Amino acid sequence: TGLHEKQSVFHFTFRRHPFKGGFAVFAGLGTFMDFLQDFRFSDCDLDYLHTLKNGDHFPLFEEGFLDYLRTMEFSCDIDSVPEGTVVFPYEPLVRLKGPLIQAQILESALLNIINFQKLIATKAARIKQAAGSNMLVEFGMRRAQGLDGAISASRASIIGGCDATSNVLAGKIFSIPIKGTMSHSWVMAFEKELTAFQEFAKILPNHADFLIDTYNSISGVEKAIEATLQLKKEGFSLLAVRLDSGDLAKLSIKIRKLLDAAGLYSTKIMASNELDEHLIGSLKEKGANITLWCVGTNLVTGKDQTAFDGVYKLSCLQDKKGNWIDKIKLSEEREKTTTPGILQVKRAFSKGKYLYDIVYDEKIGLNNLEEIYHPVTKEKKNIEEVHEIKDLMIPIFTKGKKVYFSPSISSIKEVVKRELLCLDSPVKKLVSSTPYFVGLEKSLFQKRQKLIREGAF
Amino acid sequence: TGLHEKQSVFHFTFRRHPFKGGFAVFAGLGTFMDFLQDFRFSDCDLDYLHTLKNGDHFPLFEEGFLDYLRTMEFSCDIDSVPEGTVVFPYEPLVRLKGPLIQAQILESALLNIINFQKLIATKAARIKQAAGSNMLVEFGMRRAQGLDGAISASRASIIGGCDATSNVLAGKIFSIPIKGTMSHSWVMAFEKELTAFQEFAKILPNHADFLIDTYNSISGVEKAIEATLQLKKEGFSLLAVRLDSGDLAKLSIKIRKLLDAAGLYSTKIMASNELDEHLIGSLKEKGANITLWCVGTNLVTGKDQTAFDGVYKLSCLQDKKGNWIDKIKLSEEREKTTTPGILQVKRAFSKGKYLYDIVYDEKIGLNNLEEIYHPVTKEKKNIEEVHEIKDLMIPIFTKGKKVYFSPSISSIKEVVKRELLCLDSPVKKLVSSTPYFVGLEKSLFQKRQKLIREGAF
Repeated sequence: TGLHEKQSVFHFTFRRHPFKGGFAVFAGLGTFMDFLQDFRFSDCDLDYLHTLKNGDHFPLFEEGFLDYLRTMEFSCDIDSVPEGTVVFPYEPLVRLKGPLIQAQILESALLNIINFQKLIATKAARIKQAAGSNMLVEFGMRRAQGLDGAISASRASIIGGCDATSNVLAGKIFSIPIKGTMSHSWVMAFEKELTAFQEFAKILPNHADFLIDTYNSISGVEKAIEATLQLKKEGFSLLAVRLDSGDLAKLSIKIRKLLDAAGLYSTKIMASNELDEHLIGSLKEKGANITLWCVGTNLVTGKDQTAFDGVYKLSCLQDKKGNWIDKIKLSEEREKTTTPGILQVKRAFSKGKYLYDIVYDEKIGLNNLEEIYHPVTKEKKNIEEVHEIKDLMIPIFTKGKKVYFSPSISSIKEVVKRELLCLDSPVKKLVSSTPYFVGLEKSLFQKRQKLIREGAF
Repeated sequence: TGLHEKQSVFHFTFRRHPFKGGFAVFAGLGTFMDFLQDFRFSDCDLDYLHTLKNGDHFPLFEEGFLDYLRTMEFSCDIDSVPEGTVVFPYEPLVRLKGPLIQAQILESALLNIINFQKLIATKAARIKQAAGSNMLVEFGMRRAQGLDGAISASRASIIGGCDATSNVLAGKIFSIPIKGTMSHSWVMAFEKELTAFQEFAKILPNHADFLIDTYNSISGVEKAIEATLQLKKEGFSLLAVRLDSGDLAKLSIKIRKLLDAAGLYSTKIMASNELDEHLIGSLKEKGANITLWCVGTNLVTGKDQTAFDGVYKLSCLQDKKGNWIDKIKLSEEREKTTTPGILQVKRAFSKGKYLYDIVYDEKIGLNNLEEIYHPVTKEKKNIEEVHEIKDLMIPIFTKGKKVYFSPSISSIKEVVKRELLCLDSPVKKLVSSTPYFVGLEKSLFQKRQKLIREGAF
């Protein structure tokens, strides 16, 4: 229909915080950038598309279209919130501007990559909040959703607040710290649990931890103590014992006493087994003597919420004369109605604390700043004083060329730490948090309301 | 410690059916077989391992060990249940026999691949049960857990019962049917919804469906009808309209009436939007006129259960003299105690229906067949008559060489259909199903009980 090269604008936004929380951590941009470096249709891809049929008989795609795909080069502008930024519903987080066909082809990959990593980075930040200053390790590979479900989750977990991952391949790919413990099969491979601990200690004299629940956690810790005391004069000290089953609160209190009675004050107790932010919180309340948390499935799959509800919608399209035409998607479900325009977000802050975010249309600018309006509830917020403000989205690609250097995972992790300090405590609460206000600039809000009133096209 | 090349046996088992159901569909073996074809440490991998430290100063791995990994060749025997088989808790589904180091290294990949695909194949089989003879399409890529979370889920969804996937890359990789619809942005790219439908119909005269909820589902279907009637004389017929929001039951009943009133009797109504087996069932009860279901996030992520609880445990190890020594993992949590031995499963059936499964130790054989015992509840089942029986696990690799040809996805899908016909209806119920009995052969049960009584080693 000749529309494929029209300039278009799409935005990635989301509608609800996951895990009933009050904030989300943006992640996945670096992975999406890597994906874009390979944006092309290979001959093999095109050969496959060539085999597809429309109904039973006719080819689905014309040769000319497949030739077009063969030579298509990525030429979009992409602006995005940097990874690690705390973000909120109804604000644009990624903006694509470019030929309609390119912006449309990228939709599925962008949503897949960003929705998932954002989910897991947010979950990790919540679990880190529960763990406090304790060490937190991601242990999820075995029950993650596919190989990349594991690897991407390791990346996002470190961003969100984990100190290390047990996924060695993720360690290699992303230069992130790795950490593991012995397996049950290590212990079972020896005739006696005691021998298993002794042999392990000899191999890792400076860095051993023992898994003590292969048979029984209490008899396990007794053997761990026996092995450690035996090898003490050779300079061995036991870093930690790991619990992987049973009543973690009761066991850890008992085990702490046994370790202390043997003089092993510096040996830590680490725990795994279906942990999440709520269970860690409740174990701490019960006085569990655990200072190192290994969180697996419930971190890397999200558990109570398996997906971010992020969407990617067309919001502006150039007509033949080069004028930008606003586009809106309406819906019987109020929160599914989109915001038209070429959008950007200003974040207002004062004394190092974030106050509210203002979504505006770059075609209109930021003119009416006395009041802003929530797009769904229509709640109005009066803006009384001028605060410091900054644009949240920054250029990542300009006309298809990368103009942004993606930081290391450890730098992004630091960004998250700083960002969370900028949020008021009530916003960060794990449950029953106070909503952070995101509003539309007045002219944009009025334009949106007008389009909604006019109804279907 | 010199144990690394000892012959060992590990089994993959699981403890509980997902989704509170009564059966699971085994899947992921073909993907694990592909993974094994690349089982080796590359120079790049070894260079990375070489950089790892034990504590802050010492190398974690000796040069000799890394050299050993460099030349290690996969030499295990693998037996497995074929993909598509219906399976139950506490029976071995995959058995690895080979050098301890190899069997151990493979643990994480095996668990990751099989746990996930088995989860999604099982979910798909449940959703297919709700959809009955209606067409079912997997639409999950955008919110799947990473790129492979999407691709593996497409594979497993087709195995479990979906007719097609919207994931084009999965279509290419696995030769499975693909199916999609127009996007909201297609409709929004035109000034009028009517024009969007007309243009789409011209491009796909034999195979078009229209997405009707971009602005309002009722005005959308009116325009869909208008466009279809206009283009009727040119031979156009509309395959389906798609609903993606709102009250799907009410809307579909209204829309069916409008389509029928316009003579479009053969135009189907397809629906998407947070569907799963329970919602499809309830929509059917409400008389929804939907005959084509597009299921996304809740299928490809599992939703109410995000991971299978599959485990992989050592159960036998050869001593210096070549004798097999049974190995057991005990636990304070009763269902976490493993079953020792070199295990196999016999499935008893009669007149095409599966009756119960018997787990036995190949070292002992199937001698005492009057009664079998559930490993956790210790419930006894008397076996009165001799039925037909077959071994569930078959050889996949022998001494590292592949001896099994993995069937096509469409053949595996047929296996699932046949398998489900072999289960009694009460076992297949989506909720409150009747448990299918899995028992240990008497001598194996007695041996296991003895080891549990003896306690920790």
